[in-house]
Formats: sequence, C-alpha cells, structure tokens
Amino acid sequence: MQQYKKVEQTDIQFLKSVFDERHVFVGDEIHEDYFHDEMPEYGSFKPEVLVKATSASQIQQLMKYATQHKIPVTPRGAGTGLCGGCVATIGGILLSVEKLNKIIEIDSATMTAVIEPGVYLMDLIDEVAKEGFLYAPDPGEKSATVGGNVMTNAGGMRAVKYGVTRDYVKGIEMVLPTGELECFGGKIAKNSSGYSLKDLMIGSEGTLGICTKLYLKLLPLPKKMTSLLIPFNSISDCLNCVPIIMNRPYIPITCEFMEKEVILDAQEYLGKSFPDQKSAAYLLVSYGAESKSILEEIIDEIASLVLEHKALDVFISDTDDRQESIWTARGAFLEAIKSSTSTMDECDVVLPLDKMESFLEYVKELQDEYLVRIRSFGHAGDGNIHVYVCKDDMEDARWQEVVKETMSKMYEYAQKCQGQVSGEHGIGHAKTDFLKESLGESQIAIMKGIKNIFDPSMICNPQKVLK
Amino acid sequence: MQQYKKVEQTDIQFLKSVFDERHVFVGDEIHEDYFHDEMPEYGSFKPEVLVKATSASQIQQLMKYATQHKIPVTPRGAGTGLCGGCVATIGGILLSVEKLNKIIEIDSATMTAVIEPGVYLMDLIDEVAKEGFLYAPDPGEKSATVGGNVMTNAGGMRAVKYGVTRDYVKGIEMVLPTGELECFGGKIAKNSSGYSLKDLMIGSEGTLGICTKLYLKLLPLPKKMTSLLIPFNSISDCLNCVPIIMNRPYIPITCEFMEKEVILDAQEYLGKSFPDQKSAAYLLVSYGAESKSILEEIIDEIASLVLEHKALDVFISDTDDRQESIWTARGAFLEAIKSSTSTMDECDVVLPLDKMESFLEYVKELQDEYLVRIRSFGHAGDGNIHVYVCKDDMEDARWQEVVKETMSKMYEYAQKCQGQVSGEHGIGHAKTDFLKESLGESQIAIMKGIKNIFDPSMICNPQKVLK
Repeated sequence: MQQYKKVEQTDIQFLKSVFDERHVFVGDEIHEDYFHDEMPEYGSFKPEVLVKATSASQIQQLMKYATQHKIPVTPRGAGTGLCGGCVATIGGILLSVEKLNKIIEIDSATMTAVIEPGVYLMDLIDEVAKEGFLYAPDPGEKSATVGGNVMTNAGGMRAVKYGVTRDYVKGIEMVLPTGELECFGGKIAKNSSGYSLKDLMIGSEGTLGICTKLYLKLLPLPKKMTSLLIPFNSISDCLNCVPIIMNRPYIPITCEFMEKEVILDAQEYLGKSFPDQKSAAYLLVSYGAESKSILEEIIDEIASLVLEHKALDVFISDTDDRQESIWTARGAFLEAIKSSTSTMDECDVVLPLDKMESFLEYVKELQDEYLVRIRSFGHAGDGNIHVYVCKDDMEDARWQEVVKETMSKMYEYAQKCQGQVSGEHGIGHAKTDFLKESLGESQIAIMKGIKNIFDPSMICNPQKVLK
Repeated sequence: MQQYKKVEQTDIQFLKSVFDERHVFVGDEIHEDYFHDEMPEYGSFKPEVLVKATSASQIQQLMKYATQHKIPVTPRGAGTGLCGGCVATIGGILLSVEKLNKIIEIDSATMTAVIEPGVYLMDLIDEVAKEGFLYAPDPGEKSATVGGNVMTNAGGMRAVKYGVTRDYVKGIEMVLPTGELECFGGKIAKNSSGYSLKDLMIGSEGTLGICTKLYLKLLPLPKKMTSLLIPFNSISDCLNCVPIIMNRPYIPITCEFMEKEVILDAQEYLGKSFPDQKSAAYLLVSYGAESKSILEEIIDEIASLVLEHKALDVFISDTDDRQESIWTARGAFLEAIKSSTSTMDECDVVLPLDKMESFLEYVKELQDEYLVRIRSFGHAGDGNIHVYVCKDDMEDARWQEVVKETMSKMYEYAQKCQGQVSGEHGIGHAKTDFLKESLGESQIAIMKGIKNIFDPSMICNPQKVLK
C-alpha cells in the first residue's frame, strides 16, 4: 500500500495561489454529489479538497506539486460514470474539469473539433451539427463530459456503424503527473510515428495524466434516419437475426436488443406507452442515408429479410414522433431499472457476437438459481450487454452474497466466451478485481509497468483500473 | 550502446532443435533479398542466421532463448517496408513469419477473420471477398504481409472512408520477448478493459514482441464502385476542392491527388496511356454504394459540385476497363518514380488537411533551391503525402548533402504544420532521428520506458523506432 501525504493548510494555501479562490473547496464546502458517481452503490468518498480548474497551466502546477508532495489527485468530469472512476477513494485532491468547457474550434477544413475536456457530450453534438457535422460517438449519457467519454473509451448505440470514442480522437493534450504538457496526435487523420501514446491515453481513466484538450474527428451529417422496431417470439430468435442484418452491405447505425420486461419497466418509469409490447424480445435497428430514396431502398430490403428470419412484424418509425417514443424508452432503460429497485449492481461485458445468446441464457439460469431479479439490455450489433442484478427487497446479508457470486460468475462465463470485463463503461475502482482475473498476471504486470513510467509516485487517480 | 552476443555454433544447434532444419539458414545460405526491404538505399544488412517459423510455439522458445542469451531478433514479413523496419541492422537472428501464412477462420457470425501474420494482403482480400466480406484497409503494396501492415499501422488509399489498419484489428496474439504468449483483444467488437495494449502493439514495428495471430474486423462487401478522375489547372485548385468533397454527406472511399509529372512517369513505366494528361493536377475520387441507383445519385451530385469549384472536367470511370487503366497507373506511381532515377529517398509525412497545399509549395521551393527533382503524390483525403527526392545523375557527394538537407527541411516544415513524421510507412531504422526531433525528449523517453517494460534486454527488433 502506497503512503500518501494528507492535505494540510500549506497545501490549501498553495492551491488558492494557483486556482481562483472561489474554485477551491475544503471540508464541508464540498457538495456530497462529488463523493460518488452514478453508482453510489460503490461507496461514498469525501475528497480532502476539491478544485475546479480553468486552465491547463493550473493543472500543470497542481500535478507538479502533487507529485512532489505525494498527494493523490482524482480527475473528474460530470461524474456520470458507472464504475467509480472519478471518486477520491483515498481522499486527497479532487480535480474537476467542469469549467474547462470551451469548444475552441470547429474546423471544417480538417473536419476537426478542438475542445476542452469538460464540454458536455450533448453540447458538442449540437454545436457541430449547426455546422453540418456529426460527432459520431453516442454514449447514452448525454450530460457526460467528452473528456470522461475519452478517458473511458465510451461506446454507445451508434458504435455498430461508427465505432467508439477511440475512433474519433485524433489528438489529445495531457498534463502528465510531472506537470509537463504533451500533445499526442492533433489535427492529422492518421499516424504511424512511434508507439501510439494517444491510444494509450484513451481509456486510461485519468491514471496516466489529466486530459486538457481534445482534437476530435467529425463526419458529414447524414441527411435521413429511420428506425425499425422488430418484434420476435424469443430472445433467441431475436439474436439469431443479428448476423443476418449485419452481413448485409447496409451497415446499421444502431442495433439494440430489448426484452419485454425492460420495456415495461421503462413504460412505468416514463408514464408513456411503447409502440408495441406484445412480444418477448425486440431488435431496434436504425439506418442513416444521404437521401430519402436511398433510405427507402435499404429499409425495404431489410424489412423483407428479417420477416424471412422469424421476425413477427416490422414497425417502421419514419416520423419524428414515432422515433421519439421508441428512443425515449430506450434511453430510459438504465434509469427505469434503477428506479425499480432498492439498489443494484451492474456488469458491462463485451462478447463475440455469437456468444450473446448463450451468455443471456446463463444470466437467466443465475436469476433462477439465486432467486434474484436480473435485467439486461444492450448493443446487439457489437456484443456489449448491460446486466443489472436488482436487490429489490432482498435482505442485506443475502444480497451481499448474491451480488458477489452472480457478478463473479458472469465475468467468469464472459471470460470463457472470450469476452472482456468492460465494453464501454471502464474499470474504475469497482471492477479492478474482475479485470485482474480476466487479463491475468502478465498483462496486469505490463499495465502496472506502464503506469509506473507515467506516474511513479502513484498520485494520478490512484486505485483506479489497477489496484 | 547495448552489448549483444554473437550467434555461435551452439545457438545454431539450438535453433535447429526448435525449427525444421530446412528452415534454418546460416551465412551464405541466406539469400541477399533478406538483407534489405524495398528501400535498399537504407543499407544492406546480413543477419547471422535466418529462421522461418511455422508455429507460435517455436517463436516462444526462440524469444525466451534470445532474451536469455542476449541475441537480437528481427521479425520480418514479406520485406516490402520502406523504412528498413525488418532488416537485421546489428546482425543476430532474422525471424521470418512468411510460412505462418494460414487463414485460420473467416467467421461470418462475428465478422472476424482470424489469420496468421504471414498471410499476404492480396490473399486475405480475395479470400474474404469470396465469403461476401471486405477487408477494408488498402495499403498499396498488396504482396505485403498483413502482419507487417499491422506492425506499421499501414494506411492505404481507402483510409479516407474506412480508416487505417489499426481500425480493423480486433485482437492480436503476441509472443513477448520473455517467450510468453499473450492475446490482446479477440473477436470482440469493442473494449474498455484497462489500457489498450492491443493499440500499443499495433504500429510498434515488432519492437515489443512478435505477432503470431490476428483477429481482423470484416465489413460487408459494397456492391458497386465508381471512380471520378477530375482535372484541374493547378495543384492549388485541386487541393482546394478536397474539403468541398469531404464535407458532403457521401464519404468517398478514396481521394488521391496526382500531378502531371508523376502520371507521365507512370505512363512511361507501364507503356500504357492514362485517360487524360492535359491538365496540371488531378483528383481521383471513388465512391462505393450498395446499389447502382444510389451510386448514380452520389456521382451526379459530386460531379456538379466539383465543376462549380474549378474542376475542368469530370471523367466517370464506370466500366471495369476504364477503372483498371486509372488504378493501374495510380498503383504504379512508386515503382515508376523508382525506375526513373538512379536512387531516391522517401518521406511519408501526414499533415492536417489544410496544410497540404503549403507543404507542397514548400517542396517545390526546395526543388528549385537544391536543383533536385522531387516527385510527390498521395492521399489528399487524409493529408498523407509521399515525397520522393530523386538523385538522377547528381554526383554522390552532392547527393548526400542534398538528400540530408531536403529531408530535414521537409520534416521540420511538417512539424511546423503540426504534422507527423509518418502517416503509414512507419519509422524503421531510417527515420528514428526524425521521430526524435518531431516528438521531443519527453515522448521519446516515455516510449523508451514502454520498450523497457516489454524488452529490457533490448533484443526485439533493436534500433527500430527508437535508437
């Protein structure tokens, strides 16, 4: 176990000399929202001091000081993570980048957005759309910061066609734990110049340095989009249809699976009815195209195709209203499940596409074996499943056992299927043991070696990813 | 400078006990093709021994032994690189993976090809096409091995729409210098489980370990493709049209620029005439679509658009013959320039799109200043320019000066434009000084730290990427 220095009055004085005094919060001045992320289930941790940065230069001074004095620094965006990646598990300084929220440039010549890390995803999407561009990554939580997205390599529903956040980061400026400011990549579109330190930073969850600027790839905005809601008699029929759809030359933008139970939860939560709820399982598939005629051609072919492969019907949502009602429901799944139970735990495995069915069957077996309610939904097009084990009115002691065993068994099963611990939410502090189990000693040792190069004092988001 | 052990008789005996005796070559048994890659200009280096592996297990035994005895190991695919990445600059063992050339599986359910690293790019493209799939990366040299493509993160002409090799590597199995076999990623489509060691391996040019298996992402095969050859009065008009094209919702598959001089070189080299040669500069833009009607809609719009932006004409190549004649010429540019001169040097810079014009102007200034013939062509859609400084009949001593100064100046200018040393060819041993200059001490030190984690004995492709 590392030894860290506690924050003392002289440290506070230093921080107040670097940051605007109004942006330094000590003790009870710190709002308890900063003690956890969107999974308070993983614990509540009070930082010794909270600072809100407004420039990279402040962060440089902070990191240099924190390394010299061995004070932990935990970077934080909007706090919408699901693995406790941005909470100060061992106290120290919580560094919020929420005020580093400028869109610096939308450069149409190089199709690059240059932004600070604290920009909300929804703001970035809106602002680039005004200039005719698409920022393609589409993590569900639109009030997340883009910096947080990059640091967890967040995915989202459009990953099927467009890929994940990593695929849209052209460059990343970081303050290293030494205080040095380095830029990896930039406005360039490709790069074969040495080891890809940029890719090492993406998904490193703030453990190798603090992101201060991002160069993001933009696409032209597709003109038209249509969604198909496709009901099936069983989750098995539903998932068997996925490769049929994916092998066609038209790559869907999204391809989500949903089961009846989760749809009913969402209806109840939203107080709005879903267009159809008679069937056991659904695929929600959407296509984008550059013109109405192109889109119609795609939709016609896919509709006939799925009807030949056990689809019960095809609901085409080509009006804004209808699309809205379906996507609002899909967007509310996580909140709906959360609000349906006293507490819960989550697993975000990613599997080879052809292993999803067997994984979901296994989850149902666990549900029966442990007499616990388990809900799942996810990205059928890329094998990423979100599973929620719900406590409901289970007794505390029993719940602790159940959650521990079901989670371990699910990760174990995912590993057997050659899956990985996290498809898009990251590791944070909540999943470090599962990561270790999944990757094995050798890969963990390599990662620790890398951590040590950047952060030998172990002050940069300690206890996250690697413990 | 590291101290290495020379290969002795006992080492040869060991190698013959691990590899098939017919696959171990010593001294004069080694064909001189193995002394260099496609740029013999960067020197001829004779390995002490050449072995051809037929299994990962042989490579594991080799690496463990080489680490123990401190003997350099240089991995090599087809030897088609352009920076000397696969040559044994300090002797030792040259490890060819040319016989590790099996396509293990084409898995349509997960849309993954699983292959050994020695598979030729052209074979992979053909075999997956038979199953209705596209392997999207498109480096010019089709007789390169895919392992070599991955290790240099090779790009190619289709990168504009589809991205580079990195974007199609889902997983990579490596033998580490210790002899351990590790798999980073796999058939999964996305991943947020710790640092992306997979991305660290891609583009590492065999300096961190030896690739033994690849999991590659496949796309559905697009049905129709058409190319547009668009003439302009100047390279400036030509490059100014690129953002106009790129900002449209139809993303082109390729977007190449070519100047008259290079086209004439290619005509002469091939003995075939190019469809048009009256203009100073051309864009070669191609589009793919899922049906003929969709493609026609795209072509009509783009043709009118470029004619409004200084294009002199638009030649639509919708017949196989016409496409063939244009693409054969484009594919022959490198060979044509090579055959037009006694020797040459190459630079593969990548720039922000809006800096290409000014870079090319600068290259023309250098040409005039140094009275040396310089040819260039490249990927207008992603800012990657290939520049060739040609010796022709220049005196040797003068040539040494000219090549040194023009190369340094080009890299320096690229850096000013926030470009990088290599867009797709890599660093090898020929570009290490330029990489150091471009990235600066801090990033080089980080890379050296990473190298040291994997390969503290420095036996794995020494002197490449980092010197």
